[in-house]
Amino acid sequence: MKLYDCHVAPNPRRARIFLAEKNIKLEKIEIDILAGENLQDDFLAVNPRGLLPVLELDDGTYIDEVMAICRYFEEVQPEPALLGRDLKEKAIVTMRQRKMEFDGMISCSEVFRNQHKEFLKRGIPGGGKDNIPAIPALIDRGNQTLNRFFWWLEKYLEDGPYLTGDQFTMVDITATCSIGFAKWSDIHIPDANTRTKKWYEKVLARPSAEA
Amino acid sequence: MKLYDCHVAPNPRRARIFLAEKNIKLEKIEIDILAGENLQDDFLAVNPRGLLPVLELDDGTYIDEVMAICRYFEEVQPEPALLGRDLKEKAIVTMRQRKMEFDGMISCSEVFRNQHKEFLKRGIPGGGKDNIPAIPALIDRGNQTLNRFFWWLEKYLEDGPYLTGDQFTMVDITATCSIGFAKWSDIHIPDANTRTKKWYEKVLARPSAEA
Repeated sequence: MKLYDCHVAPNPRRARIFLAEKNIKLEKIEIDILAGENLQDDFLAVNPRGLLPVLELDDGTYIDEVMAICRYFEEVQPEPALLGRDLKEKAIVTMRQRKMEFDGMISCSEVFRNQHKEFLKRGIPGGGKDNIPAIPALIDRGNQTLNRFFWWLEKYLEDGPYLTGDQFTMVDITATCSIGFAKWSDIHIPDANTRTKKWYEKVLARPSAEA
Repeated sequence: MKLYDCHVAPNPRRARIFLAEKNIKLEKIEIDILAGENLQDDFLAVNPRGLLPVLELDDGTYIDEVMAICRYFEEVQPEPALLGRDLKEKAIVTMRQRKMEFDGMISCSEVFRNQHKEFLKRGIPGGGKDNIPAIPALIDRGNQTLNRFFWWLEKYLEDGPYLTGDQFTMVDITATCSIGFAKWSDIHIPDANTRTKKWYEKVLARPSAEA
């Protein structure tokens, strides 16, 4: 089993933090997206969309969605539970994780992709050779949904030290990686969001944050 | 426990088909989105984003993401398995389900929302009162990613009668609802995609398709 990884990219980081929290070590193959290695034939044979991370199972099956990879390892090694401990918490983690993706990760991607000339004809992640144009209006859109992201983070933290209460979960991981990704576009946690700032400091202090 | 539902909307349909396949019956509360009931205070107290479906648990917790709702019931009642029978199949279902959402459901939403004047200031689902403008360029973008959606459907069906092989799963449900949603914009399965056409006929013939 091995993980196709990319050190600078935000989605592989989600998988790496998840694995580090569970102390699971995998063989890793680094793909250099800055050099365009993800759009070359060798890697397109692994994932035709050119996206990372990808888990290669021992039978050669490729799993190329980060949440599919995380769920796989949650089942292989349930402790510590990162996708919820009981039925209700699992539902809340699945729900909030999703909000963090849509309001956070995807918004960051829209702001970033649509303002850099490298992506002028690569408007969507995974559309490597499809020649899909960037849409500059998505920069504003992404900024607006990032405001919503920060608003929800602060609200979730009313209920406890982590984004679903007393336990660090995948919701915290996706939010952390989104905040890291937002920095690429010089967007930061608003100063007024004191709970979020305190939480972010705490999650960055976990050893997994370095993964 | 009850389900806030909306008969015309594509995401609640995913939940209804899922529940019908498991023969789970829930109390349903119909929200009339065509009359704007989802953006009125009563429903915004249930889901501040104004989106459906929402599951209300017996303790009053709201679960407002369709996949969180489906995963909840997969655990409550595992048979028939709609999210995969074993570790590897679960990973494939999670992965492909996601593709169907991104390439299918979200593309349909982009094509539809950005061309109808009702959504001129409601550019994103769940941005009801945020005044987020529509982006007409997303109509083309959505059409391009729908091409990709149809291409992948035909490809997945090389491996068996359903989108992950021999078993009907959530991947088939999300794809079916996406195709139904595409029709709103007069977009249909390409004639050349004969495997997809045959599959679609078969899934529509299941009793759950009427749910």
